[in-house]
Amino acid sequence: MNGAESLARTLVEGGVHVCFANPGTSEMHFVAALDRVKEMRCILGLFEGVVTGAADGYARMKDRPAATLLHLGPGLGNGFANLHNASKAYTPIVNIVGDHATYHRRYNSPLTSDIEALARVFSGWTRTSLDARSVSADAAAAIAAARTSPGQIATLILPADAAWTEATDWLTPVPKVAASPRVPSDAVRTAAKLLSAGKPTLILLAGGALRAEGLALAGSIASKTGAKLMAQAFNGRIERGIGRVPIEWLPYPVDSAIKVLSEFRQLILVGAAAPVAFFAYPGKPSLLARPEAEIHVLSRPEEDGRHALEWLADELNARADSLKINSSTQRGAATGTVTPEALGASLAVLLPENAIVIDESITTGRGFSRPTQGAAPHDWLQNTGGSIGIGLPLAVGAAVACPDRKVIALQADGSGMYTLQALWTQAREALDVTTLLFSNHKYVGLRNVLTSIAGPNVTAKAYDMLDIGKPDLDWVALSQGMGVPGMRVETMDEFNRAFAGAVKSQGPRLIEVAL
Amino acid sequence: MNGAESLARTLVEGGVHVCFANPGTSEMHFVAALDRVKEMRCILGLFEGVVTGAADGYARMKDRPAATLLHLGPGLGNGFANLHNASKAYTPIVNIVGDHATYHRRYNSPLTSDIEALARVFSGWTRTSLDARSVSADAAAAIAAARTSPGQIATLILPADAAWTEATDWLTPVPKVAASPRVPSDAVRTAAKLLSAGKPTLILLAGGALRAEGLALAGSIASKTGAKLMAQAFNGRIERGIGRVPIEWLPYPVDSAIKVLSEFRQLILVGAAAPVAFFAYPGKPSLLARPEAEIHVLSRPEEDGRHALEWLADELNARADSLKINSSTQRGAATGTVTPEALGASLAVLLPENAIVIDESITTGRGFSRPTQGAAPHDWLQNTGGSIGIGLPLAVGAAVACPDRKVIALQADGSGMYTLQALWTQAREALDVTTLLFSNHKYVGLRNVLTSIAGPNVTAKAYDMLDIGKPDLDWVALSQGMGVPGMRVETMDEFNRAFAGAVKSQGPRLIEVAL
Repeated sequence: MNGAESLARTLVEGGVHVCFANPGTSEMHFVAALDRVKEMRCILGLFEGVVTGAADGYARMKDRPAATLLHLGPGLGNGFANLHNASKAYTPIVNIVGDHATYHRRYNSPLTSDIEALARVFSGWTRTSLDARSVSADAAAAIAAARTSPGQIATLILPADAAWTEATDWLTPVPKVAASPRVPSDAVRTAAKLLSAGKPTLILLAGGALRAEGLALAGSIASKTGAKLMAQAFNGRIERGIGRVPIEWLPYPVDSAIKVLSEFRQLILVGAAAPVAFFAYPGKPSLLARPEAEIHVLSRPEEDGRHALEWLADELNARADSLKINSSTQRGAATGTVTPEALGASLAVLLPENAIVIDESITTGRGFSRPTQGAAPHDWLQNTGGSIGIGLPLAVGAAVACPDRKVIALQADGSGMYTLQALWTQAREALDVTTLLFSNHKYVGLRNVLTSIAGPNVTAKAYDMLDIGKPDLDWVALSQGMGVPGMRVETMDEFNRAFAGAVKSQGPRLIEVAL
Repeated sequence: MNGAESLARTLVEGGVHVCFANPGTSEMHFVAALDRVKEMRCILGLFEGVVTGAADGYARMKDRPAATLLHLGPGLGNGFANLHNASKAYTPIVNIVGDHATYHRRYNSPLTSDIEALARVFSGWTRTSLDARSVSADAAAAIAAARTSPGQIATLILPADAAWTEATDWLTPVPKVAASPRVPSDAVRTAAKLLSAGKPTLILLAGGALRAEGLALAGSIASKTGAKLMAQAFNGRIERGIGRVPIEWLPYPVDSAIKVLSEFRQLILVGAAAPVAFFAYPGKPSLLARPEAEIHVLSRPEEDGRHALEWLADELNARADSLKINSSTQRGAATGTVTPEALGASLAVLLPENAIVIDESITTGRGFSRPTQGAAPHDWLQNTGGSIGIGLPLAVGAAVACPDRKVIALQADGSGMYTLQALWTQAREALDVTTLLFSNHKYVGLRNVLTSIAGPNVTAKAYDMLDIGKPDLDWVALSQGMGVPGMRVETMDEFNRAFAGAVKSQGPRLIEVAL
């Protein structure tokens, strides 16, 4: 068995059964090895941003890492943006990058670059396998590193000679990964004291605390103490909908977030960071809570937030029976003109049970949170790192992870263009993804920023840079060009009909929603 | 004038008149400043790989840098692959990356990452402007750095507060950039001695020596001494066709390159590196010349290769009147089935005078070099860094640089998918680009590698990873979805008719060539 096969077998033994790949010559021994390792499913992306975003979506839904397979520095570069996003979501990924043979690097052939330096920008763990006999141990260490709480990207660089040379016949088992550490008792007692002090308090949740169980515990605490719950602005995964504890996320616009936070004198952070502005703006603060607000960390991202909430609920004698949960608020799908509000109302009615919602709807979707609280139970996955072009790839990974669930991608047009190649993988793998492509032909968020900077005097030249409607993109053609059936809707009646039809059918569909 | 305007004006004063851009919130002050700086043309790409590849193509044709405008670390990451390629072509680029406000970075908001570390992987010069008053001096230094021979990427990171704060009213002029240094006389005398020794000698050319003037000098030397000329395997720009000195480039496959080089006992390098294998393969050498061959550097990449050739020609008393030049070898366009050979024959006839040929045809185009020697005079631009996805963006930049010349992009399908968004910019700017999209539905180069590794026993699972034809991409739909008229041809007659028609018309066209 050569190093490449040793790697593939170690991955499988270590619980990594899916590899999202865009291989090149230096990875060809790994591809050849796949023939002999039947348990590894390998899924091709036609661009590396698809591969890395899919690995993110897969792990968010499976709670265990997928592998990637990327081609030298430029392949890793193409995958950078969605690895950045994954790193901000604390997603575990075993990120495999092929490199030149060790002895070949010194000759500086065209594809040579400093892969380790590039990988370290977003990886929590980086290692180059120096020879074939090290590969299995290195791969096992990479899996363990990726799974170390709260999850991180472990980049393993595989030189071509380490792949093709004969390796050991035995595989290294993955070292035991420590469970998330529990929070110190002080953290819980202080939280309990703050919650009993009678001051307006926000419990700000992130990570695992946003699954149903964590939310139920947080909901009991909120009911008992009068504290309010919110999720941080961008989250890897929230379990929500009917029967779950209602929770909204902090708004993205700085002024809105400051307004929301202004009522709180105390913040208790559960896996979340203190709220900061996404961008700085002249004359606006970076930190969004009231300056005098007391901010207390109940649990850090790597700590066990669910357990901390359980402990805190015990401490406060908070009980699940007083829990407020979402009930159906459905008032029928919206009709008439397509607007963000109408889309939110229709989504609330039409989201199928157990759907996985991928949200890269940007400005169109800013209001979707509230109405969809009353939708059928579902998961909601957001862009955690702010690098646009995550939506379509994330949908690929989620659909591979959960073949029996419908994936609904809420996708803005500007962002969708970054990684549109993901549609091809959806078609190739017959993934059950319905993409709602919101087509407003503009970078609307940026237009708002430009107007606020430049005032009414800004002219067409500057706005032109934010106008992606000259020429208009035809998403139905783009989608069909990659094998995904597409259609375009221009009224809410058409939308409701098309979306209901897509939900009933199987396989990838794209609905271009004209706004 | 704020820092952003100071930057835009310094660029214009420094001869940088085009900015390829994909801006975000942190770059919005620069976008707003464009309104007040009429001399700066700003061209939008819907993905950063388009932006950086276009800047490469522009500078290759203009011999002066364009600017890019990218959005924080992930924007730079998306642009990485084509910046890698540009760095290997020694292309001058002023690469501008917006960042968070200096005081905001510490809060680690979602888009925060180590931009400088990322930039250093491919940049010859990297600097962060620390305040608005430094911006003009930093921009002037960036232009000078980019233009320093042989050309490099200068990355200037612009924090948002350096952009929006009031800057100085005066602009820093670009420091004088030293001309390419001349080679030492020893280098010329040694070359002359080697060429007079009667041993089989290859003069291997790269960079500026591949323009018509350098080639004519090299051709005179070759005629006088019996040396053979070749270009290195991948080149930024070669002036070729009828009336120019015939030159082919070293073949990509290792065995072919070794065979070509086996006849030479001496290599004289003019701006080129000693030939190395693109990838290492088990049992094959990294260095491709005969081990005992004497390798002499006439000029390094940063030295003046044209002048070195002139000096050497003088030394050898080599005269232009003995020059062999290309004459027309056109025997009529090919008919019948579409094959790489037939395409090469038709290209030779149909390439319009003064065309700019962008070559990312990969396996399909391996044989295009010889027949097109006899085509009308043209420039030939290759992928210098091996990261695929350069072709369509490079065509954008070349067309912007030379609006009165026809750009012909020879584009493989697999590579084209990486940056297909470039078609939209071609449509938006009405660029005169004809893309010949060679559609074989496979990563053919990789299939060859896999077969050579795994032999006849390799099964469908591994080949599936290299098959991009499940489902087939419909390039006509993809092209039209982005506003570029597309058509598909399946015979050489159809090809000849479609290509001749595209050459006669103006504006972007895509012809999908079924192979």
